Amino acid sequence: MQRMVNDPDRVVEEMLEGFVKTHGNLVEKTENARVLKYVKAPEKGRVGIVTGGGSGHKPAFIGYLGKNMVDAVAVGEIFSSPTAKAFYDAFRAADGGAGVACLYGNYAGDNMNVKMAVKMAAKEGIEVKTVVANDDVASAEKSESKKRRGVAGEILMWKAGGAKAAQGGSLEEVIAAAQKAIDHTKSVGVGLKPCTIPAVGHPNFEIADGTMEVGIGHHGEPGIEVAKLKTADEIAAKMVETIVPDQPLTEGDEVAVLVSGLGATPVMELYIVFNRVYDLLEEKGIHVYRSYVGNYFTSLEMMGVTLSVMKLDEELKELLDVETETMGLTQFGRQ
Amino acid sequence: MQRMVNDPDRVVEEMLEGFVKTHGNLVEKTENARVLKYVKAPEKGRVGIVTGGGSGHKPAFIGYLGKNMVDAVAVGEIFSSPTAKAFYDAFRAADGGAGVACLYGNYAGDNMNVKMAVKMAAKEGIEVKTVVANDDVASAEKSESKKRRGVAGEILMWKAGGAKAAQGGSLEEVIAAAQKAIDHTKSVGVGLKPCTIPAVGHPNFEIADGTMEVGIGHHGEPGIEVAKLKTADEIAAKMVETIVPDQPLTEGDEVAVLVSGLGATPVMELYIVFNRVYDLLEEKGIHVYRSYVGNYFTSLEMMGVTLSVMKLDEELKELLDVETETMGLTQFGRQ
Repeated sequence: MQRMVNDPDRVVEEMLEGFVKTHGNLVEKTENARVLKYVKAPEKGRVGIVTGGGSGHKPAFIGYLGKNMVDAVAVGEIFSSPTAKAFYDAFRAADGGAGVACLYGNYAGDNMNVKMAVKMAAKEGIEVKTVVANDDVASAEKSESKKRRGVAGEILMWKAGGAKAAQGGSLEEVIAAAQKAIDHTKSVGVGLKPCTIPAVGHPNFEIADGTMEVGIGHHGEPGIEVAKLKTADEIAAKMVETIVPDQPLTEGDEVAVLVSGLGATPVMELYIVFNRVYDLLEEKGIHVYRSYVGNYFTSLEMMGVTLSVMKLDEELKELLDVETETMGLTQFGRQ
Repeated sequence: MQRMVNDPDRVVEEMLEGFVKTHGNLVEKTENARVLKYVKAPEKGRVGIVTGGGSGHKPAFIGYLGKNMVDAVAVGEIFSSPTAKAFYDAFRAADGGAGVACLYGNYAGDNMNVKMAVKMAAKEGIEVKTVVANDDVASAEKSESKKRRGVAGEILMWKAGGAKAAQGGSLEEVIAAAQKAIDHTKSVGVGLKPCTIPAVGHPNFEIADGTMEVGIGHHGEPGIEVAKLKTADEIAAKMVETIVPDQPLTEGDEVAVLVSGLGATPVMELYIVFNRVYDLLEEKGIHVYRSYVGNYFTSLEMMGVTLSVMKLDEELKELLDVETETMGLTQFGRQ
């Protein structure tokens, strides 16, 4: 395994140590070693934003801690849910007395642990409401969209929820904004090479040379099709044609587009894919209001790309425009 | 080749198209298809900052176009110098009448083409002064430091030069600040897996499994040692022990640290490496004033890491503190 680790079982601890040392202006530790918080959280009277999930997806999840975005994050092992206690402690770290919005992805472990944590918080008088992201269109049929997983679209959900909280929104309003953001967002991924969890030491799934897996999940969950490896333009078209009818998006719509690498893809190639995505959408009369291209939600060193498209209305546009200061997403830096 | 490209000979064109579509708030095209500029450049009476180099290093070079950093960039083919004409046109795009500082890396092609472009600009009455980055300590002995290549330390040179220009510095002052920044910065890289230029289709060098190449260059130039693959902590120590005596850094010094992935390294591991770099420096009484960890200067999908350390004085600290808005580096987003 050609990787830079010490003890494979301690990669998360060491990563967190390094992260806090690097971004001390934005994040800090809490009493729970598996919970980080924004340095200025909680803010009294403001709804707290919490998320959490397995590690290995950097900048997700802790990279979105910061001003007007996420206030506290529960951190799991690589590709594993944080504990209920971690979610609970994250709620406490984010609670400013106006309630907490827990905005997370639809995975069995996260669902279970968030549910337990919400009960624990209720006993302490902390009101927590949740939004479960299910933007990955490839992970279940539309008729069963509640079974779909949450992927990179979660970033736009955190952005919308955090912005609504910054505007002084109530817990109900923050939840409504985050729910709308994720309901309006559809994602799909394409994998070209697998990734290796350090403690495992070899890839936990295979993608044969010359092929690509369409609809691959963030942890290598099987996609909807193993196809011959296509050109960047064809990959872009495949993703656009998956998302557009699912939302559906139609002529005159405005959208935000997020193209994320899965870890090892040269950033150059993300721009090549986006270049075609943009043209395909514009040709359909779907206007790209804002775009994000980069490594926003990765899977260790997987080779591949995800496309997320959010259908905008005036409220969502206004929320996207709210200033953000995080390691992963800033207002000016990466848009 | 498991990669997302269309025509391998047109990756730079398509990447540039996508880049401008994504970052239209920051960058725009010029008459020369191989020159991009900051949307607000040139600013009358302000020194223009230009750089340039081969493609495949994203965010370098075009990712540092933006407010108070780089005004125009000459773009080369993958791992190849831009033409003299591209540098010349970048000078013209950045010239606001106060002269242009061309801050670039020490590579034969770049040296030759910048020299020609400076002469072309002089004929047009545009004064251009240059700083040649040579921060890569592994690329030549200290006694021959003028032969050393420029690597990720260039980012800190652009930051210092751009900040000095923002403060209203004269061309001489901007050049002096950039020269000081790079003189104060030492870098070294470690490669774990090679990269593949799309038009070539296979790696242009090898790194055997179980080994690492210490001192590897940004294009796979041979390093100073092929060693057995070590732990993250040992890799961190190797890099710190290479840089500290070379600067030299001593107890009481303050530094900025930049840890960059080479493209495919999971960001998690960059934080693990930084975690040890930080501790090693602090143990020596060298205080980390600012740190940057991420994919700041890559080599396509090479696996590996570079460490750059800049010795700070009051002027350099003040310059680092100047606000920046770029895709690759923002004041808040990634520090």
